[in-house]
Amino acid sequence: MSTPRALITSVEVTPVAFADPPLLNSVGVHEPYALRAIVVVRTDAGHYGLGETYGDETHVARLKRAGEFLVGTDAFNINKIAERVAESLADDSGQGGHGTGGMVTTTSLEDRVLSAFDVAALDIQGKVLGVPVSTLLGGAVRDEVEFSGYLFYKWAGHPGYADDQWGAALDPSGIVAQARKMVDQYGFKALKLKGGVFPPDEEAAAIEALREAFPDILLRIDPNGVWNVETAVRIGQRLEPVLEYLEDPCLSIEDNAQVRKQVNLPLATNMCVVAFNDLPPAIKAEAVDVVLSDHHFWGGLNRSRLLAGIAQTFDLRLSMHSNSHLGISFAAMIQLASVTKNIDYACDTHWPWKKPEDDVIVPGVLSIAEGKVKVPTAPGLGVELDEAALARMHQQYLDAGLTKRDDTSYMQSINPEYELQVPRW
Amino acid sequence: MSTPRALITSVEVTPVAFADPPLLNSVGVHEPYALRAIVVVRTDAGHYGLGETYGDETHVARLKRAGEFLVGTDAFNINKIAERVAESLADDSGQGGHGTGGMVTTTSLEDRVLSAFDVAALDIQGKVLGVPVSTLLGGAVRDEVEFSGYLFYKWAGHPGYADDQWGAALDPSGIVAQARKMVDQYGFKALKLKGGVFPPDEEAAAIEALREAFPDILLRIDPNGVWNVETAVRIGQRLEPVLEYLEDPCLSIEDNAQVRKQVNLPLATNMCVVAFNDLPPAIKAEAVDVVLSDHHFWGGLNRSRLLAGIAQTFDLRLSMHSNSHLGISFAAMIQLASVTKNIDYACDTHWPWKKPEDDVIVPGVLSIAEGKVKVPTAPGLGVELDEAALARMHQQYLDAGLTKRDDTSYMQSINPEYELQVPRW
Repeated sequence: MSTPRALITSVEVTPVAFADPPLLNSVGVHEPYALRAIVVVRTDAGHYGLGETYGDETHVARLKRAGEFLVGTDAFNINKIAERVAESLADDSGQGGHGTGGMVTTTSLEDRVLSAFDVAALDIQGKVLGVPVSTLLGGAVRDEVEFSGYLFYKWAGHPGYADDQWGAALDPSGIVAQARKMVDQYGFKALKLKGGVFPPDEEAAAIEALREAFPDILLRIDPNGVWNVETAVRIGQRLEPVLEYLEDPCLSIEDNAQVRKQVNLPLATNMCVVAFNDLPPAIKAEAVDVVLSDHHFWGGLNRSRLLAGIAQTFDLRLSMHSNSHLGISFAAMIQLASVTKNIDYACDTHWPWKKPEDDVIVPGVLSIAEGKVKVPTAPGLGVELDEAALARMHQQYLDAGLTKRDDTSYMQSINPEYELQVPRW
Repeated sequence: MSTPRALITSVEVTPVAFADPPLLNSVGVHEPYALRAIVVVRTDAGHYGLGETYGDETHVARLKRAGEFLVGTDAFNINKIAERVAESLADDSGQGGHGTGGMVTTTSLEDRVLSAFDVAALDIQGKVLGVPVSTLLGGAVRDEVEFSGYLFYKWAGHPGYADDQWGAALDPSGIVAQARKMVDQYGFKALKLKGGVFPPDEEAAAIEALREAFPDILLRIDPNGVWNVETAVRIGQRLEPVLEYLEDPCLSIEDNAQVRKQVNLPLATNMCVVAFNDLPPAIKAEAVDVVLSDHHFWGGLNRSRLLAGIAQTFDLRLSMHSNSHLGISFAAMIQLASVTKNIDYACDTHWPWKKPEDDVIVPGVLSIAEGKVKVPTAPGLGVELDEAALARMHQQYLDAGLTKRDDTSYMQSINPEYELQVPRW
């Protein structure tokens, strides 16, 4: 092998928590704090690389174990890093640690753990070589990345907490008001409504109200797979004139393939195609048009490039999914999108739902204007760790007392009648 | 965009010729000289990067035109390089310049032209950053790359020239003698017979003779698609006990899919899956088991990594195809194979058929022992241009008077009765 350029000497994995509004979804409601794990990989030459991923304790334990396997590995050899991560998981039960509150549970264990280390290794490589991550991924094809505004049904505040700045949104007019605020502040040209919360016709009415209020803005709805085929076809057909795409109307490849035949809209997914082994059956079934990639479960930025290449080869369109995240994930998403020619739609982000002061990076690099973020061009990811902020966010994690994301139990603690149901309608 | 790291200031494209023995194949016989184009890309900081590709004049003209489009581009932005290459081809008729003597004619024009520039850009990046190309491609997973010995039916020498060192091989005993010489000299653990030359039963007998002479060596035969389905099934079944895989028995995806259902051997191809748009239909038809990649027509090393990822995702196996080539192509093949985990079979190479003194690189880096080549670890491709050798090889090109590879016309100049026929048997 060639001489190592940046031997990994330590890996620190720190769970953190940040305030999150009561955003409603198909499995319950966001808890008062969202969890993330921050990965800091250090090298013999004193460089550090950053990664960010799910904060569920099972996932954190896996990250720590993988981190031990990575000490002594060259941060320039992502292939070796992937091998070591796989070795660290050889005896793993594979249970839990999905980090998505039970919503997406069939992602690849190895890719989920690899992701943060792939990002951190690229961050290190960029810093050693003096190039942004975009250069390491083939070179930027755009200076700015476009994002969509992510609308949620929500309560005015968490029970027992003060109301947040966004207020309640529980019907079409509430969603339109939220959209107005978000568009005014960030200039989004596309809006996505997280559905699967209210009866489908009410959610369709919210989309129609958005269309009326914002004639020029592209619209999407995502019921997170809780509609049955009949409902999905009916609502899909109703919304044909107004939607850019319909996201995960049903949960399975088979059901979405049926919907797709009867609805004249592109179908998007981040639920039935979430790992490389989902691609062959989904392509065979002609189940979806758009894959919403997510480097957190597709194995990092290098593997996400592979996904983009597969999408191009098999005539699938591409965009990007988001979970509640901090600045390291955001920077990684932006670097990836900057090099991915076939990003066909504005990417999702939860960024506006996060308080600006809740982060672990030095602020000021990432901001959304006109619906776009400028791609950082400093070496690596282009963001710097704020050690004091990391300590503060970790303390917040300890104080919050949460060990995994569980939207359903939190909802049930407020509404004991609440039950999970898929499909619900 | 980020600051360019290595602006391209000039691109030189030089056709060269090197002595080639009279190797027989399904479309005729190799001419006394094989053609290649050598691409030298220079940057503002005085670095140079090397690429090697087909030497047909149509291809050389395209390379030169693309080279003009690349001046001023950053050698670190492969995505931009690909865009510029595509622009340079916007008005191209797409006719000719395949470089394969008419044997493979459905490769992607853009990928075929991009390839040498992708390799040269990676060579530059590696030199600027002080890392081998393997590091830029994700990191080596092996120190050595295994190759197979490439056996050909052949005449003792070109008509009108002295016999070459290999002598004639026109029947099973001739092939066994050739194999013995090649195995003794290079230690190959796998052997491939270029078939499609004699009636299929004679070629099957040659394979059986090889099996008897070399009980432990893996064997393959490649009739270059000139068998019909019935013949392919019959010969395939006959050779089931002795072959590692059967390569391109028929020419089309449909025919090979039929053969594959009836023959219990892996089917390999570098003829019916030669571009990204061949993958969806081939996968759908379950036509082949093994894709023999070739960075010269798959768009270079970055795009070949995508092919490798697609192969892994869709449960295709992978190895590597070869045309007559010099050291730059060999170095690129080796760098690529070193990072490709799912190279499942020893790669093909024509290397032993080339005179050692016929090359454009400083000798001594690449050599086959025990069937393997050590992966260069010097920056970039790990090989250096020998300017005097390049001039000498270009003079040889001018003296040879050839402007494209044409095995068929050369065969017809010797045997006027010779006719192209697909399938032939």
